[in-house]
This record gives sequence, C-alpha cells and structure tokens, in this order.
Amino acid sequence: MSITISPITGIPVIRPGDDLATHLLSAMDRSRLHLADADILVICQKVVSKAEGRIARIADITASPFAEQIAAQTTDKDPRIVEIILRETTRIVKMNRGHLIVETGPGWVCANAGVDESNSLEDGTVILLPADPDASARRLKDAVRARTDKDVAVLITDTWGRPWRDGLVDFAIGIAGIDAMLDLRGETDMNGRELHHTVMAQADALAATAGLMMRKGAGLPAVLVRGYAFKPAKGSAAPLIRPRELDLFR
Amino acid sequence: MSITISPITGIPVIRPGDDLATHLLSAMDRSRLHLADADILVICQKVVSKAEGRIARIADITASPFAEQIAAQTTDKDPRIVEIILRETTRIVKMNRGHLIVETGPGWVCANAGVDESNSLEDGTVILLPADPDASARRLKDAVRARTDKDVAVLITDTWGRPWRDGLVDFAIGIAGIDAMLDLRGETDMNGRELHHTVMAQADALAATAGLMMRKGAGLPAVLVRGYAFKPAKGSAAPLIRPRELDLFR
Repeated sequence: MSITISPITGIPVIRPGDDLATHLLSAMDRSRLHLADADILVICQKVVSKAEGRIARIADITASPFAEQIAAQTTDKDPRIVEIILRETTRIVKMNRGHLIVETGPGWVCANAGVDESNSLEDGTVILLPADPDASARRLKDAVRARTDKDVAVLITDTWGRPWRDGLVDFAIGIAGIDAMLDLRGETDMNGRELHHTVMAQADALAATAGLMMRKGAGLPAVLVRGYAFKPAKGSAAPLIRPRELDLFR
Repeated sequence: MSITISPITGIPVIRPGDDLATHLLSAMDRSRLHLADADILVICQKVVSKAEGRIARIADITASPFAEQIAAQTTDKDPRIVEIILRETTRIVKMNRGHLIVETGPGWVCANAGVDESNSLEDGTVILLPADPDASARRLKDAVRARTDKDVAVLITDTWGRPWRDGLVDFAIGIAGIDAMLDLRGETDMNGRELHHTVMAQADALAATAGLMMRKGAGLPAVLVRGYAFKPAKGSAAPLIRPRELDLFR
C-alpha cells in the first residue's frame, strides 16, 4: 500500500493563545483534505511553541557572566540569546567553532537547545521548544478527536543538523498516537536468520520527508501523512532519546 | 502537491551479475506501476551490492592480529568479519562497548563500515557497501532511461544508527539525477529575515521515509517516490558527508 504526504496549506500566522486544532482543521477544510482514522498529522515545533507562548523577549533577559563569556569566545550570538539557550540546557555536549551543542531537559541533544531566531513573531524574540512536546502532541490529537471524531496520530518535528552528515533533517520531538519505534526484531531475513538490531525509528523516518515538504517561513508548517500502516499506541518521543550510557558520542 | 511513496513488490532474490534494472522494471510492470519522468527510485544498498558481487566469503579471509585483538576486546564478532570491516575502513572513529564506528573510503561514518551479516545470499558470506554508490545509482538511472525513456532519479540507501537518537533510519549513500541538498538560503521568513543555515539534506529526508516502507528481508528492497518537485541535477551523495574540519564529532 502506498503512503501519501500532503502539505496543509493556508494555515495563518500562529500567535500565542491560538487554538492550533481550529486553524489546522479550517485550513484542511478549505483545501478539501478530510481527515480519516489513522492519518498522521505532522506539524513543526515552531507553530506549536508560538501557540503555547514559548517565546522569549531578548530585551527582558540579562546575560549571566558565563553567557557573556561563551558569546565572546565561541559564538557570534547576542549574549542574551546564549543566556536563553543556557536556561534550556541541562548539559553542554560540545562547545566549539561557534557551535553550542547541548542536552535539553527531556534529553534531546541539539544545537542551541532548539532555540530559534528565525521566523519569530517579531524582531527581538526567539522561539523555544515546547516545554513538553509529547503533551503538546497529545493535546492536538485529543482536540482533533473531539471535533472530528477521527483517531489520528500527531508528530511534532524540528529541523536539526546531524554529526557526520551535512544538511538539516526533521526529527520527531513530540508524539501521540503512534509508537516512536517499529520493532522488527524477531522477523527473519530471507535465510531464516533473525534480523537482529533492526528497530526502526519510524517517527523520525516519517518526520524526515514530512518536514521536507514543509516551508516553515512560507506559511506551510504542517503536513498530512496517509496510508502508513501502524498499530495505534499511546506514543511518546522519549524512546528516540538514546540512553546516555549507550551513547558513544555524548 | 502531494507526494506518493509506493513499495515495489515482487523483486526476486538478487544474485551477483543480475541486471537490477530488468528486475525492477519487471516487478513494476507486474504491479502496474508505470514510471514517469521525475519519479525517484529508492533502492536499498543490499540488492545493489549483491548484483555487483560485493560479497565476501568469510572462509576466504584470514584475520590479522589487529582484527583478532579487536574481536577479542570490543565486539562479539568473528575476527574474520572484523578483518573484512577493517579492509573497508580508512579511520576508526570510535571503538567501544562492542561497537566499531568507522569512516569508509568515500568518507561515510557508520557502524562496521556498512558490512552486513543479515540477508546475505547464503550463510558464510557478508555484504559490503557498493564500491562507488554514486556510480551504481548512475548506472541504474541510465539503464532505466535506455529501456523506458523516462528520466528518473535514483537514491541508494542504507539503514544506520545515529548518535544521540535511538533506532535506525535509512540514509542516502548513492545518488543520481537529484541534488543531495535543497538549499533554501536566500529564502526569507515571514518577517523578511533570511532563513540562514537552512540547507536541507533532501536525499536523506526522502531516503528515511522510503526506507521505512522497505522490508529488506521480505523481498521488498525498493520504493517509488512520485510527485516530489525537484530540479533535475547530476547528483552525488558526496555533499552529505560533513567535511571533517566542520565535524565536531569525528
């Protein structure tokens, strides 16, 4: 069976307090995209964060001496933005060549704690990651269910770099309604040998192409994936975080 | 515009010397999938390597003392398989906790140099990565063009782990007909601010979802992506290799 990935166009600029489900469903109505059970809504972190008011005003921030030092030594950033990043950071993984790769509260490892200077509501603000992206995904799933009676899955994505490979790719950071992983262990190869080690990060795999279809700066922050066969599940992005003790690069 | 990702079913077990294009096109004919210009054929490395005879027979290999040491200390592998891995390796990036993360000739960083013990043609053999995956992709693209007159793109993928994130995802390691990257720099965000840093690894993003649709052990090693808008280009996977001097984790 084929899967289809469709952009959801016509979503307006999202502002703090906006109801995302309303905007998403209205935009889908206008483009005659009608939700079905087992559809997967993929939405970029920025609009979720904006709706949730996860915005910091740079003028409100006082940089600590450490933030001032980092700004001077390792990045070309405003020290107050470094301060905002540090407040989202539980551990600095690498600080080098103008880059600040950190671990955030939930355990994500990414540049700048996911703090984003582009596409903010107005100059002088930056957008933070949602405080609890799984909960954000769950709220959106429940709101869609309440209004359409359709049981969909939700992936919240962000666009990050990777070690070793150039270019950015979207990853899943919040999940509801589908497992992060697809466990193929126990399936055998064509010789009857077990395909050990094969646990696919299905949420990341789906997020990647879906994110490529988005144009976050051009009002296209969400995508609909249809036809992917999956077992409904509570879902959480936590299994995508490699446990620190099993991570050779942290 | 939506994109559609369709599994190509009915591809037989591929053996050394087999003509991949013939098998792919026959399988597509049987399932009434008809190629169109700008389709993207995504095919897993294993069948490409098998067709090209990139297979090593373990019994033919003598492990070097270094391979014996590594096998004893850090992995649960047969020392001869470690030897095969080392012969594909230009640099060891990390050797720890049973894992061998290495850099291969072209510059890919991956576990075990991509040497794969599952799904080999018969017991006692392992499958190596194609010697030049871009050239493999180009040959397949040209063969498809010669037989169907359709101008398609080709991605050759492999399934790898990632630092920081658990679970496996498919990556593009050989490309023809499409750029590895989609450069969005110069596009502006909704405030007219430039979306700097935004170069998307479009080949990896497409490979991820396409690879999730494959079942390499169950005779489903290829997938057709249709409807993705891209500018035809010569294509190469080389831009996906992060230059070593810009890589904080190598």
